Amino acid sequence: MYLEGLSKSQKLPKEKGKHFDLVHCGKFADLVKLFEPANHPLTDKPIAGEFFLKDQINLTGMQVSFGTMPAGAAVPFNHKHRHNEELYIFIGGDGQIQIDGHTFSVHEGTAVRVSPEGKRSWRNTGSTNLNYIVIQAKENSLGKDIEDGKPCHSQPKWE
Amino acid sequence: MYLEGLSKSQKLPKEKGKHFDLVHCGKFADLVKLFEPANHPLTDKPIAGEFFLKDQINLTGMQVSFGTMPAGAAVPFNHKHRHNEELYIFIGGDGQIQIDGHTFSVHEGTAVRVSPEGKRSWRNTGSTNLNYIVIQAKENSLGKDIEDGKPCHSQPKWE
Repeated sequence: MYLEGLSKSQKLPKEKGKHFDLVHCGKFADLVKLFEPANHPLTDKPIAGEFFLKDQINLTGMQVSFGTMPAGAAVPFNHKHRHNEELYIFIGGDGQIQIDGHTFSVHEGTAVRVSPEGKRSWRNTGSTNLNYIVIQAKENSLGKDIEDGKPCHSQPKWE
Repeated sequence: MYLEGLSKSQKLPKEKGKHFDLVHCGKFADLVKLFEPANHPLTDKPIAGEFFLKDQINLTGMQVSFGTMPAGAAVPFNHKHRHNEELYIFIGGDGQIQIDGHTFSVHEGTAVRVSPEGKRSWRNTGSTNLNYIVIQAKENSLGKDIEDGKPCHSQPKWE
């Protein structure tokens, strides 16, 4: 159903330092170019693709994917999770998400949290690609600190 | 520096169920409309805004914000974190991020992981708003399961 192994992803421009990793993935409307075009062998419908960031930039607290779904495509099954909360952020196109049998329209700027046990699926109801970002993090893992960030004494030095 | 208390955010359309919360935040190019326009009282420069999702949709494993920074704006300080890994996903506009003194260009599709101890700041170098999503999750909190998701026996029923 999904294309997760992406030969082209190896060639994305990257930067790396002691405390960071950076990758330039390109414009979201071009996401589909990261994937080899393909139809599902059984349904002959176009296949949704997800580009996973975790191994690209060494994430340790979350899995994140950029997803794209061509017009006419749908995830043909529900899925749930074992331990991870999921957040879907839709960034372009028009679609629907179904959770535990409840169906909602989604479009740019729609954010949906789903608990591990929620049964979820989604589809593209528009005429363009449906693009989205999916974030997984362990449920209840976030610390109770209201503010985890703290300012440094140093200031940025822009050239 | 930041505007975090957003009166208009109260009015965003939402949906809620046992295992999910959904919010429609609107188009990213309109993000700035979620914030009251303001200049920094000391510098008189435009203020960057961040719209935090955690309390909007009851996230438990991550904090996520939609950010927007007007042309000419910059975060005037470095910051680091106590426990959380941060991921910056840039979704529109042109800017730079600086981490531990290293400066990189960022634009749509750039994803940057920063460890808690990395000193970071960013600025808008373009003529339009710089829009981005920032995700925080506890460093090293993600389980080692390669695949946390599992398919359900049920299928989605689209009307």
